[in-house]
Amino acid sequence: MPTETPDKFSTFQIRVYYEDTDAGGVVFYANYLKFLERARTEWLRELGVGQHELAQRQRRGFVVKGLEIQYRKPARLDDLLTIRSRVVRLGPASITFEQFINCEREALCTSTVQVCCLNLDTFRPAALPVELRTLLEKVQE
Amino acid sequence: MPTETPDKFSTFQIRVYYEDTDAGGVVFYANYLKFLERARTEWLRELGVGQHELAQRQRRGFVVKGLEIQYRKPARLDDLLTIRSRVVRLGPASITFEQFINCEREALCTSTVQVCCLNLDTFRPAALPVELRTLLEKVQE
Amino acid sequence: MPTETPDKFSTFQIRVYYEDTDAGGVVFYANYLKFLERARTEWLRELGVGQHELAQRQRRGFVVKGLEIQYRKPARLDDLLTIRSRVVRLGPASITFEQFINCEREALCTSTVQVCCLNLDTFRPAALPVELRTLLEKVQE
Amino acid sequence: MPTETPDKFSTFQIRVYYEDTDAGGVVFYANYLKFLERARTEWLRELGVGQHELAQRQRRGFVVKGLEIQYRKPARLDDLLTIRSRVVRLGPASITFEQFINCEREALCTSTVQVCCLNLDTFRPAALPVELRTLLEKVQE
Repeated sequence: MPTETPDKFSTFQIRVYYEDTDAGGVVFYANYLKFLERARTEWLRELGVGQHELAQRQRRGFVVKGLEIQYRKPARLDDLLTIRSRVVRLGPASITFEQFINCEREALCTSTVQVCCLNLDTFRPAALPVELRTLLEKVQE
Repeated sequence: MPTETPDKFSTFQIRVYYEDTDAGGVVFYANYLKFLERARTEWLRELGVGQHELAQRQRRGFVVKGLEIQYRKPARLDDLLTIRSRVVRLGPASITFEQFINCEREALCTSTVQVCCLNLDTFRPAALPVELRTLLEKVQE
Repeated sequence: MPTETPDKFSTFQIRVYYEDTDAGGVVFYANYLKFLERARTEWLRELGVGQHELAQRQRRGFVVKGLEIQYRKPARLDDLLTIRSRVVRLGPASITFEQFINCEREALCTSTVQVCCLNLDTFRPAALPVELRTLLEKVQE
Repeated sequence: MPTETPDKFSTFQIRVYYEDTDAGGVVFYANYLKFLERARTEWLRELGVGQHELAQRQRRGFVVKGLEIQYRKPARLDDLLTIRSRVVRLGPASITFEQFINCEREALCTSTVQVCCLNLDTFRPAALPVELRTLLEKVQE
């Protein structure tokens, strides 16, 4: 379960399985993006925001618009990873996250991910739901 | 491109990339199911059946109901695999495929996959589209 | 965490994320095999068997030799799945598992998976490590 | 097959299958990184560089150190994508690629990917193999 740490980071843990690794013996570079998505999703869930429900009731959904990631050290089979996430910018229709992947004390990846809120009927950018904005502003303070 | 061979098999080739392998140095066991699906899809496409179009126009789609697979030898990075597929049974609302994965002369996997046709509005089994049945019966002969 | 239930099943829970689903709105059929592998791995871990360590110290590893799976109902985004696993046969160099995937009370998938123990230096079948055999026999009783 | 275009781009085509999509009906954001890796691999292969062979003979391998990607429009099931790749910087032990994903005339993704050459025995950065450097310099001109 993700938990709110004093430094405004939400943290989430992930175990590395065979499915995540490649023949180089380490986690395949695209798969860290899966871990980041799981951490963002669980954070939203913890804040009371279910994406499935958001889609059904308010016709709002999130898409990633852009990201930047640095790979410092590789994760390996059986590693227990910690993902720390925080909001660094709240736009009218977007959220920018900083996310860090660690294994014990070692920093493996650092990333910045920009997520955009869409109206699922028109597929155009839409204002963030008010309750979500309020929650994220509170977390950010 | 899949091609119809004299022995009623449709054949399709796939290159193994890093994404397909795991830390054991071989293709991860679930990923062979991706290869099988690509081969079935390309076969249908070659027969003139686009699944996206089938869904839009006739509200029909396919789901896998069950499968059985034997893993004989592993595939590795950079291998060029050949998937051979044939229909072994046509039910009113289902198709049963036999699919074989080879690397050069070596047999890597053998599988039997049962696919069911659904009405996408009700999610209940639906008769195979007539044109598809006709095509598959011709191929089977 | 997997736990030993009175009926000899080990149970493990998995959340469905976007990465697991496909454009049909449900979990992609190959991805259930990832869930099954995670459940087997966590069961071994709970029994004190780390696969990474087993490979390093005893040069033993596991590969799936064959499997059979029935898909009854689809899993969807945000579902919390329960995987129940038990050993149904212990061969000299192989373990056969039965694994069931449920969402709440509903049975989604049933599977039988045969796993083979290999000598990682020769890639030939090798006797199961004695301690693992002893542990699994105890669990099976 | 990737081909060298007059404007120094190598191009490679990829079909979108169910495995690539998610419940949002579009390609899952991490999966574009698989497409980019396939395109880089096929480019190297076309230049005569097999990564498996490079690892065996010269103990050299490549890892992604960092990347930046912008998602402009989503790819969908059955789309035929074109990946264009070019080298924008050759460092002593690194290659920086620009890669573009298009569907017909539409730009879907733009990315910059920095790949580092490693000595596979020490896992430290290693000079690019001379022949590869020569080939890439020629392509870049």
